[in-house]
This record gives sequence, C-alpha cells and structure tokens, in this order.
Amino acid sequence: MASLTLIKKIQKETVGQTVTLRGWAHNIRSSGSIIFIEIRDGSGFIQGIIEKKQLGKKGWAEAEKITRETSLEIEGLIQEHPRQKGVFEAQIKKISLKQVADEYPIGKKNHGPDFLLDHRHLWLRDQKQWAIQSIRQEIIKSTYQFLWQNDFTKIDSPILTPTACEGTTTLFELEYFNLGKAYLSQSGQLYLEAAIAAHNKVFDFGPTFRAEKSKTRKHLIEFWMMDAEMAFVEHQESMNIQEKLISFIVQRVLKNKGPELDLLARNKEKLEKTKPPFSRLTYQEAIQKLQKMGSKIKFGDDFGAEDETLITADSEIPVFIEKWPEKIKAFYMKSDPQNNKLVLGADLIAPEGYGEIIGGSQREDDYQILKKKMKAAKIPLQYFQWYLDLRKYGSAPHSGFGYGLERIVAWICGCQHIRETIPFPRLINRLTP
Amino acid sequence: MASLTLIKKIQKETVGQTVTLRGWAHNIRSSGSIIFIEIRDGSGFIQGIIEKKQLGKKGWAEAEKITRETSLEIEGLIQEHPRQKGVFEAQIKKISLKQVADEYPIGKKNHGPDFLLDHRHLWLRDQKQWAIQSIRQEIIKSTYQFLWQNDFTKIDSPILTPTACEGTTTLFELEYFNLGKAYLSQSGQLYLEAAIAAHNKVFDFGPTFRAEKSKTRKHLIEFWMMDAEMAFVEHQESMNIQEKLISFIVQRVLKNKGPELDLLARNKEKLEKTKPPFSRLTYQEAIQKLQKMGSKIKFGDDFGAEDETLITADSEIPVFIEKWPEKIKAFYMKSDPQNNKLVLGADLIAPEGYGEIIGGSQREDDYQILKKKMKAAKIPLQYFQWYLDLRKYGSAPHSGFGYGLERIVAWICGCQHIRETIPFPRLINRLTP
Repeated sequence: MASLTLIKKIQKETVGQTVTLRGWAHNIRSSGSIIFIEIRDGSGFIQGIIEKKQLGKKGWAEAEKITRETSLEIEGLIQEHPRQKGVFEAQIKKISLKQVADEYPIGKKNHGPDFLLDHRHLWLRDQKQWAIQSIRQEIIKSTYQFLWQNDFTKIDSPILTPTACEGTTTLFELEYFNLGKAYLSQSGQLYLEAAIAAHNKVFDFGPTFRAEKSKTRKHLIEFWMMDAEMAFVEHQESMNIQEKLISFIVQRVLKNKGPELDLLARNKEKLEKTKPPFSRLTYQEAIQKLQKMGSKIKFGDDFGAEDETLITADSEIPVFIEKWPEKIKAFYMKSDPQNNKLVLGADLIAPEGYGEIIGGSQREDDYQILKKKMKAAKIPLQYFQWYLDLRKYGSAPHSGFGYGLERIVAWICGCQHIRETIPFPRLINRLTP
Repeated sequence: MASLTLIKKIQKETVGQTVTLRGWAHNIRSSGSIIFIEIRDGSGFIQGIIEKKQLGKKGWAEAEKITRETSLEIEGLIQEHPRQKGVFEAQIKKISLKQVADEYPIGKKNHGPDFLLDHRHLWLRDQKQWAIQSIRQEIIKSTYQFLWQNDFTKIDSPILTPTACEGTTTLFELEYFNLGKAYLSQSGQLYLEAAIAAHNKVFDFGPTFRAEKSKTRKHLIEFWMMDAEMAFVEHQESMNIQEKLISFIVQRVLKNKGPELDLLARNKEKLEKTKPPFSRLTYQEAIQKLQKMGSKIKFGDDFGAEDETLITADSEIPVFIEKWPEKIKAFYMKSDPQNNKLVLGADLIAPEGYGEIIGGSQREDDYQILKKKMKAAKIPLQYFQWYLDLRKYGSAPHSGFGYGLERIVAWICGCQHIRETIPFPRLINRLTP
C-alpha cells in the first residue's frame, strides 16, 4: 500500500515511489484528457497530473468533479519535473474525494482588503498568506529555541491586571467581580521583574492589547509580545543578547523557509546581512544624523515613523538607538550614570521602513530613586508597592526587552500591512471573523 | 579569573574549580567563625561555606552583613559534600554584595494562603514554588517540542471575539470601539478549525478566561490552554495523539526535573507509569462502573469532581471517557455513526483526583448536520457563517482537543490547589499582585 506522507517530505529519494497525500485542490487546469491539479496539504504544494487513460472511466468521472478547494486523498507516483530540477510532481493513480467544494468565493481577480479580511477564514489558504503564517511560525519557534538554549524560563505574566503603568487611555477595561475594574495587560515586564529573583532569566510570550484609535499600517488592537527579563545583566549586554536573538531568528527563517520567502518575493540577500553586531547610535547622534538628513526633529522629541525610516535608510541591518531623554521614556528605566537626564534604554529599529521591533532598557534597581521616578510619573504607588518591594529584597542590576512579533513578521516577510501577519487581525473597525 | 556559571551546571567535573556565582542568600546559618549560606541563582541551590580565616577581616565583615535574600556575587571552590555523593558545595573565597536585603517578610513560620498570595512577587522564590514553576516550564517546553516534532503549526487564535459559542454567562465583556461588545475567548478551537485547511495540523497556546463565580481548588479565572486541531484525523487517532503527548510530557519532566519533583515530595513511581495506551471507557461503561462503586450518577448526567476521582481510583494512568450523550456536550462534536444520540468526544481524566486534563472530539464536518446542531443549540448563526463555510469549501474529517495547562501542572507536581501552578493567579477575589 502507498504510504501516507506530507508534501514537504517529498524529495529526490521519493522519486519512483507511490505515496498517499491528503489535501485540497488548490488550483485546477484541464485540457481534454488530462487534468493538472495543484494539491495543497498544509505542508506545501505539489502538482498532480491526472490522465484519463491512467484512471479509467470511473476514476476519471470522479476527477472531473474536482472543484477548487475540494478535499481529497490521492495516490500518486512521484517523479521529478522534466525541466525543473528539484521540483516534483505526482502522477495520480487513484483519487478519493472527501467533499466537493462549492464555488470558491475567493477568485483569481483582485479582491479589496475588506473582502479578503471578511473571508479571512478562507483567505488563510492563499499561497502568500500561507507563506506568511509559516514564516511567523518559524519566528515563534526560533524565539523559543534561542531562549531555551540560553537558560530562560517561561513565566506567564497575567493578562488581567488591576492598573496600568503608563496611563489608561489605551487600555481595555472590564468589570472584575466585586473588585472593580480590571485592564488587559500591555506588557508583562513588571511581573517578569519579580520572577528574575526566582528564575534568573525569564520570558513571557503572549497577546497584548492596545485600545488605540490610530489606524495605520503598523497598528493592531491585539498583537503578540515576547518580553524577556534578565538578572545581573546590564544595558550593553542586554543589547548583545537582543542582536543575537534577532540574528538567530532571521538566519533560521532563511535556512528553513527559503521557498516561503521566495513566494513572497522577499529580497533574501538583504536579510542575510542580519548578523551581530548591529549599529548602535546614541539618541543624540541619531538626532544629529536625522537633522543632517533633513528631518525637523529636535532633541527631546520622540521618533515618528518617518524618522525611523530615515535613520535606517543607509543600513541593511537593524539599528539600536540608545540613551534616550528620561522625559520621553518610561519611569522604570535606569538613569545613565554619565548623564542623569538620559536613561539606559534602547530601541531596535528594523531596516527598510519597518520601524521599531524591540524596546528595552536596564531597569532602575535602587528603591529610593525608583520611588522618586514613580512619584514624578504620577504612578499610583499603592498598586505598585509589590514592584518597589523587589528593590528592597535582593535588588540586582537587571535589564529586559520586549519584541513585537507582528512587526518582526512584517519586516522578515516584507509585508506592506501588518494585518496580514496575524491569523485573525483585530483592527479598530474589525472584530470578525 | 573564576568563570561565571550557573548552579545547575555544577557537576563532578567542576570539583576543584573556582567559579563565580551570582544569586541570592536563600538561607543563612552561622556558628562563630563559619557561615553557611544557601545560594540560589534561579537555576538551582548550592551550599556556600564562608570561613573567617579564608576571607580575612574585610571579607568577613561583608559576610556578616548578609541577610536573607541579599543579592551577591561569590567566588567559590567547588567540592563534593563529604558525606552526600553528587551534592556539591562552594568554599567561598570572595564575596561582593549587591544589595543587603531588608528583613524578609516571608519567614520560616507558616503563613496563611492570603498572606502568601499577597506576597506572590516574593513567594515565587520559595523552593517549592520555584520547583512548581520549573516543572511548569518543562511541561510547556515539552508540549512545544512534541507538537513541532509532529508537524503542527502554531496559529495564534484571537482573544477578543464578537460572541461566544457556549453562552455568555461566564464571559468577560468589554466595549470594542464602535462595534459593541467584545468577549474574552474561552477557546481558540473554532479559529483553529479554519486554519487546518491552510496548515493541516495546528495549535494555539495562550491565556483563556472564565468569569465563573465558583471558588474551588480546581478553578482559576485566567488560565492557559493549548488547543490542537488536525485535518484528516478521526476520533480514535486523536486519542492516540493525546496519550502520546501526555506521556511525552510526563517522561520529559521525570527525566529533566527529578530534583524538583523530589523537592515537592512527588511520588515519581506513579508518574513513571504514564505511557500509552491509556484506558478507554465509553461513557456508558463509566456510568455502570461508577454506579457499582456507589455513585448516584445516572446515564445522561455530566461527571462531577467526585465521579472523576472515583473513575480513576483503580488507575495509575489517565483514563479516557468517550462517546458522551450529545445533550451534555458542545454542538460541534460529530455524532457517533453507531448511535446518533452519542458524540465522538472524549475527556481525559488524570489519576489521583486531579480531574479532567483534556477535552476533545472529532468535529462535525457535514454542513447540513452542523447547521441543524447549531440551530438546536441556539447558536446565533449570523456570527458563525464563517464557521459553517468551512464545511462548504473542502470539508474533511478532523479532530481536536484542548488541554488545561494548570490542571496538568497540578497533577504532575501533586499540588493541592491550582492557584500555585500559575505565576500570578487570578481568582474571584484576587487580581493582585
């Protein structure tokens, strides 16, 4: 009997074998007594050739019923494409249809984004959409592998939290039994800081939520963040770890998802350059450079999307911008010992206009200084005494960073719009399907 | 110079070397001119021996300042414990204190659960709590490894959803811009069913929420679920995969977290028996067995916690209960072809009273039958047309299951109460820290 396999496992050694495949008719072309179907099984795509003379009358009658997206099982003899080396085809010997699909609503014509998003449950089957999600999966997988190889422990931070550390205007709120309001978390960082004294290097990786009314190519309402936090790690070492992580991810995608990158017409040569060390500019250097390049940005301003694009215009690898003015960064960042108006924070900006992919910093570890910073930032101390406690009982230098998964997927895949980087995007005007 | 290492990496080969460790003083005993500190660095625990004559006057003065939870860096000569083989100690040669901790609020006396939960940010450092989270991490890691080795793709299902499939009484709701209410997801299953036609075998692994007013040892408001969904997989094969996954997890924990299980005084011999095949009882057989054992359960009743404990009383491995009455299971389960009043669903019950750890089923794949079932269950069809669509365009036999992470952690660790299995538990009366 022909053995069941996956399309991605078909290789030179499979040639001459008859295998069973289960999947869907992704595309069909017919010419008289021969039907070409592109079969998709979730692991890849392969051309199947159905010849009337091979299948006999009954089999051919079945074959003629096949519509786009029909689910089926086939037995086929694997052969190499006569002209394309390394491309394989299946000479189909037997067909069993599972369900003959109704006329598929997604056609070959160009649909608008609303139509495609309304049909996201089907659009996921599109070859490019499949490639994006396959690459997303490789990014997730290589992130876990890197962190586990480097002794990080996964500590799941809570989603439901009693308050926010950076204002409540972009928070989703809900009623939590008799305890009043709860808010959906925007970062697990503070909780991870508690866990480092128990586990040393920790991370979380989960959904976060921003009830932000901005509608741009780079914003999602629900998106995934990976936060890492490390005891006894200072600012520069944290950046070393970040560039190693990002390089590891990119190299893994290049190694394992080459065909998917090709399907997306992604320039792989640019990605190949993603290796440590990345460039490091201070905020001040970056401001000067931007001004020389014509930006109107002034010292003390935060970067806009245009500045992020401009600052990496001459770089094919990500660029760190470090040592930001205290005033435009979060209260928990440690002051720069060389200039206490600056903090030891760094943003990592992806090239090619994809913007910030990581935000990180060394954290303030002194109880009195942190308390002062919290008061200045008008943080409600009663909710954060536990966070201050961490500076009373075995405080240590520590650093951490958070990466935005969808931003990284967009950059590596070369996606124009972030909505394609997540399986079921949540936008200001979209909560379905 | 002594090289920096982690306690877990100290082994026979390290004896005679001088290493640097960074961590916390977990415990201190002093006797005149010698101080014993148990050092914790997140990877493990080691005894450090500080002798006055070794450190000199200045060093000894520092050593005398060490309080519980003080953060420090030491250089120590590794030696094997004179009487305990395989146990190592560090003869401390140099000490550098990072922060001398204030008097630690968690003492050696017994604290009540409220006190400990109020101090969860510190309680995580407790040896048993550390062991539980380390085992949780191993369970997470082995889950990912198993799924990735078996060609599953991670598809992150959305948390914010427009409606629920099983009633809204236990759902958290929030305002979603101008689109009305959104609800926090209780399962990604339906979304994963959409993704199988694109990726074949898929899973998600994320937080889920239940606004349930029950306050038991087994309930959390926020907990983690792993949902898996598989195209072309039928009911029995799905159970095969589930028992392989659970066995893989348990064997990995036994292999890699033996000392942590010992810290929890967990009976490892019982866990060692967790290997396929698990017992499989039909619901009907289970009812008869329970009745013989004295339960008052009747055919048609769902299982209570007591029934779950009773049915596994004579088993050291998990038990599947399959083929449930349609009336007490969800609408999406496929009818048993041999008896259409039953469905091809199975619950996996852990032994030793830990209850249900997996719920799964083959899914209904026929458009008309599913529509009928949804109408009967009063599901608002307008929200679920996309789900019905999946049966129109390449429907195929498929099955899936969801595991509750904290239930599995509780079972493997032998935890009395589920609140200790998650880093920051959310309970009906607790949203902090």
